[in-house]
Amino acid sequence: MNRLIDTTGLQSAIEDFARPRNWDQFHSPKNLAMALTGEVGELVEIFQWLTEAQSREAMADPARAVHIHEELADVTIYLVRLASVLGVDLDAAVRDKLAKNAQKYPPPSVSFTYPQREGNT
Amino acid sequence: MNRLIDTTGLQSAIEDFARPRNWDQFHSPKNLAMALTGEVGELVEIFQWLTEAQSREAMADPARAVHIHEELADVTIYLVRLASVLGVDLDAAVRDKLAKNAQKYPPPSVSFTYPQREGNT
Amino acid sequence: MNRLIDTTGLQSAIEDFARPRNWDQFHSPKNLAMALTGEVGELVEIFQWLTEAQSREAMADPARAVHIHEELADVTIYLVRLASVLGVDLDAAVRDKLAKNAQKYPPPSVSFTYPQREGNT
Amino acid sequence: MNRLIDTTGLQSAIEDFARPRNWDQFHSPKNLAMALTGEVGELVEIFQWLTEAQSREAMADPARAVHIHEELADVTIYLVRLASVLGVDLDAAVRDKLAKNAQKYPPPSVSFTYPQREGNT
Repeated sequence: MNRLIDTTGLQSAIEDFARPRNWDQFHSPKNLAMALTGEVGELVEIFQWLTEAQSREAMADPARAVHIHEELADVTIYLVRLASVLGVDLDAAVRDKLAKNAQKYPPPSVSFTYPQREGNT
Repeated sequence: MNRLIDTTGLQSAIEDFARPRNWDQFHSPKNLAMALTGEVGELVEIFQWLTEAQSREAMADPARAVHIHEELADVTIYLVRLASVLGVDLDAAVRDKLAKNAQKYPPPSVSFTYPQREGNT
Repeated sequence: MNRLIDTTGLQSAIEDFARPRNWDQFHSPKNLAMALTGEVGELVEIFQWLTEAQSREAMADPARAVHIHEELADVTIYLVRLASVLGVDLDAAVRDKLAKNAQKYPPPSVSFTYPQREGNT
Repeated sequence: MNRLIDTTGLQSAIEDFARPRNWDQFHSPKNLAMALTGEVGELVEIFQWLTEAQSREAMADPARAVHIHEELADVTIYLVRLASVLGVDLDAAVRDKLAKNAQKYPPPSVSFTYPQREGNT
């Protein structure tokens, strides 16, 4: 079965980067969760004063596109590292979660459809 | 060349989940960045009162392991969704970032080694 | 001179609460910064799927108003506690910052006015 | 009765700053919650690689002390602004919350004391 997400290459690349720099000592789950927070904060700052419509066009600005690229990379790196030091298989985790979500939010049917949102989208 | 991270399966799975539920209208980058924040907040809460040493053993507690699993999944899902609606290739993004990091933090050499941390690890 | 912000009462109330419960041992700045993150995450979740216009009316819904009240309280309590254990005078801190902001963002003049935002407000 | 927290001065100062700069249009609760997140992220970054013990001494380093001062100010400013645009009285909010906490975490008694934490503090 194909994986929904495969992070094995990145996991190894981070390990190979961290080990010779003696960074394993800093990479406790507690610290990595904090680092993840910090990077997500930097990502959020990019969008905070934009309207939703502007945020949908955010990549059209070349400087902002570079910035978004970089912050998404930082978040991804810390997330994969955190899962790795905890020994969590992200593929299994997202499969379990999507299955739960499918029960929590049943697919629309003849008698029920999800509503259109009012106002700006 | 092998990818460091491959999220194509998850990206499709989320699209297939969101579309029939009319959720595309809510999934602006602005909103998804907020949702990512919220999930990271829930992840951080798991570790906030633990010592670093305790955080390294966090998965040994079965109930906590389930909780961590779920929160990591939520963060992963929103991160991949956010990259997807922005059209960002996370594999390219992390490659660029790791290359930058390699320049910013040169590998240790005969004349320079990264220090051991004092105190608890 | 009047204070811009006075948190002395809350600071004492939290100390009186934490001490008999042996919570000082948990209230390191590192841990409190994490706890602050978690509470801000819960606050952000309230607004993540709302439009900006809807967020301006968020208190009109009684259940949501209670929720907002509570999350703002949690954020405030951890922020004041964090400043307190660090020995930071929040009144002095915000005065310094407002003075810096006044230099960074000069008041509008005949030759320069701040623009109206396009799109939804 | 004395207030536990009084933010009226800061609230006015922010209003007087925002109005001539046409910033009210940006200061929706949704946007301010995001801005608060970003600033908390910057605060967390200061502590992420420190041990808890090091975080308790964080103000001893003059450069770091300035940084902490500034980030705490930013968080405070956005928090007070957010409460203000929502019309939330932070003093009432924290009173309600402390009363709830007193019920949730009863004071220690002869038969029950809160435990000492193991490991590093």
